[in-house]
Amino acid sequence: MITLEKVKDAARALKPIISNTDILPMPIKCDNQIFLKTENLQITGSFKIRGASYKISKLSPEERAKGVIACSAGNHAQGVALAAQKNNIPALICLPEGAPISKIEATRSYGAQIMLVKGVYDDAYQKALELQKEHGYTFIHPFDDDDVIAGQGTISLEILEEMPDLDAIVVPIGGGGLISGVAFAAKQIKPSIKVYGVQASNASSMYNSIKEDRAIKLASVNTLADGIAVKQPGDLTFDYTKHYVDEIFTVNEAEIYTAILTLIEKKKMVAEGAGAVALAAAMFNKLPLTNKKVCCVISGGNIDVNRLSRVITQGLLNTGRRAMITIQLKDTPGQLSEAIQCVAKLGANVISAQHERLAANGDIDTCYLKLELETRNFEHIQSIKATLHGNGFSIIV
Amino acid sequence: MITLEKVKDAARALKPIISNTDILPMPIKCDNQIFLKTENLQITGSFKIRGASYKISKLSPEERAKGVIACSAGNHAQGVALAAQKNNIPALICLPEGAPISKIEATRSYGAQIMLVKGVYDDAYQKALELQKEHGYTFIHPFDDDDVIAGQGTISLEILEEMPDLDAIVVPIGGGGLISGVAFAAKQIKPSIKVYGVQASNASSMYNSIKEDRAIKLASVNTLADGIAVKQPGDLTFDYTKHYVDEIFTVNEAEIYTAILTLIEKKKMVAEGAGAVALAAAMFNKLPLTNKKVCCVISGGNIDVNRLSRVITQGLLNTGRRAMITIQLKDTPGQLSEAIQCVAKLGANVISAQHERLAANGDIDTCYLKLELETRNFEHIQSIKATLHGNGFSIIV
Repeated sequence: MITLEKVKDAARALKPIISNTDILPMPIKCDNQIFLKTENLQITGSFKIRGASYKISKLSPEERAKGVIACSAGNHAQGVALAAQKNNIPALICLPEGAPISKIEATRSYGAQIMLVKGVYDDAYQKALELQKEHGYTFIHPFDDDDVIAGQGTISLEILEEMPDLDAIVVPIGGGGLISGVAFAAKQIKPSIKVYGVQASNASSMYNSIKEDRAIKLASVNTLADGIAVKQPGDLTFDYTKHYVDEIFTVNEAEIYTAILTLIEKKKMVAEGAGAVALAAAMFNKLPLTNKKVCCVISGGNIDVNRLSRVITQGLLNTGRRAMITIQLKDTPGQLSEAIQCVAKLGANVISAQHERLAANGDIDTCYLKLELETRNFEHIQSIKATLHGNGFSIIV
Repeated sequence: MITLEKVKDAARALKPIISNTDILPMPIKCDNQIFLKTENLQITGSFKIRGASYKISKLSPEERAKGVIACSAGNHAQGVALAAQKNNIPALICLPEGAPISKIEATRSYGAQIMLVKGVYDDAYQKALELQKEHGYTFIHPFDDDDVIAGQGTISLEILEEMPDLDAIVVPIGGGGLISGVAFAAKQIKPSIKVYGVQASNASSMYNSIKEDRAIKLASVNTLADGIAVKQPGDLTFDYTKHYVDEIFTVNEAEIYTAILTLIEKKKMVAEGAGAVALAAAMFNKLPLTNKKVCCVISGGNIDVNRLSRVITQGLLNTGRRAMITIQLKDTPGQLSEAIQCVAKLGANVISAQHERLAANGDIDTCYLKLELETRNFEHIQSIKATLHGNGFSIIV
């Protein structure tokens, strides 16, 4: 069972290891006044170090001697690895062999031994259980464990100490460890506070489970927010969420992209998909609150930069700052030059241009120019299209 | 003349307006132990609010009534706008009409009146001077002003209060206002501290000026670090730099890109080009120090996201996590499919593929496949090329 005293004990144990991350105001127009608990700036780039560290600090001398094992391709792996290193105990992390190199390297850099397991996550998980039995390691569960949950709950102590007049905390939900700890601790300290959960609509296992009042297992999950792409809530976390969380909302992928882009532009800060869902819910006014002080937990920042670059591009397209325009050209000299000049005069910057002859319609004299442009906003895109049209070009898309 | 008392007075004046930004450890392998003064997380996204605020706080009631004017397309504009708003005085900002919409909107959001001037920066500057004379506004210079310099110097008070055992501070140089204040104040407090300046090698006006011992004007400047793309140092700032700065180093564009990408990956933090040069100098071991505690001032985070996305892409290419491969195919059915399968089996993700017939060499049976791939590292790229080669494909690039 978890108690407020246990969460406070976790806070004492964590003090020399973690940072009390900043709470920053988020200057955006929406129904409420938004603040960000910046766990993306936490060591290891996510809150996971809290639960893993507290769990490890509670191990007996025998357990410490044998070491710990975990299975994760993400933030939990890094949390366990660093927590074990700080406690001078060995850690073995099983990862599926396709895990991103950047995450493998980060985990290894915290001194953990890495085992790459053929197959997907479930295979790595099975392997970890086998090894645990064989060698007597302690298995560190990513969420369904009271010590882990108490560790995550220390976030509420920090938030409410700094902002005692806060009205609500908004928290991402994957397996449910973070929200269980945060909701439990927050309601013990300030019973009137609201705690809301947010899931990606493509991975809404807890949302569905609470709605049907039983732990439901999704067949598949597919979201940019890989940190919360969990098929099934834990037993403990399902109960805590049911008792202490006021409501759960979902956000779609486009909303997540926009939240990530907004954090970059307004706060110069990188969040991973899971880290941005709470802000996405607040920005897109999903919360049943108006003019309240709301703190969104930005749970992590470990996003692969390849993906980040694609998120930015999609975010730019969504907000009119990048445009794809396909123009029909007559196949005569000067047409390409004229079209490109039109675009240049209007101050759009060409990212890429493709000039193609598509004879599918049988017209061998027609060419197409496909342009990718840096633009200012949707009005700018409209004026470029209008000018091209005025100069006799047909806009295909 | 600037004095330490004046810098302390600035700190008192700024206290209710600015944040004392975090100093964070930067976990990278290099010759020294690196810390970051995160002025990219400052309100307005850069340190410029410090100097502008202090300057404005010192205006007489008559000057305040008439208001202030500034000319900038960047951080200085936002700093002046917000400082004026906080002091309840009117501000007019002249910008060249081609300025990025995002910067115009940010400046407007702080309550300043915006005047878009036809032409480039110099035209906007001339217009601002005209308007100043006509209406009696106070012109807020971006760097060559003792009050502005004293405001920027407050950064040193914060750094040395938090890290009295620091060995060196590394600071970007554009016009020289930031380094003048930082170097002056730091050396008053701790004469043994080293203060180093960093410029982009494509905009090294202060570097050249100090070398030749006179203020030199560059014909042109062209760098991603637009915040420090200044053609000529100020008179005051040249003198302060000459007296208080230990040495100036330059970094090239690739080094700036890598520093920005490293900040994103290791610290979940966005810096603009100018904001990353101090870190770039430290990372690439340009400083004449070993095993010292070094604080790099990350001066700002206002980078256009279009540019950020290109910086990330270039950074990925530079570090083997994106690859462009062009393969020669025989023009027979199945060739494209076979090549693509090779790539897929090795776990590379296709970003874009172009299949083209280039008849320039006269061989009408040859096609080219140009692939843009997400890859893990340079070894991964090599193994893809080797496998393609082993399957009979020629790699062109």
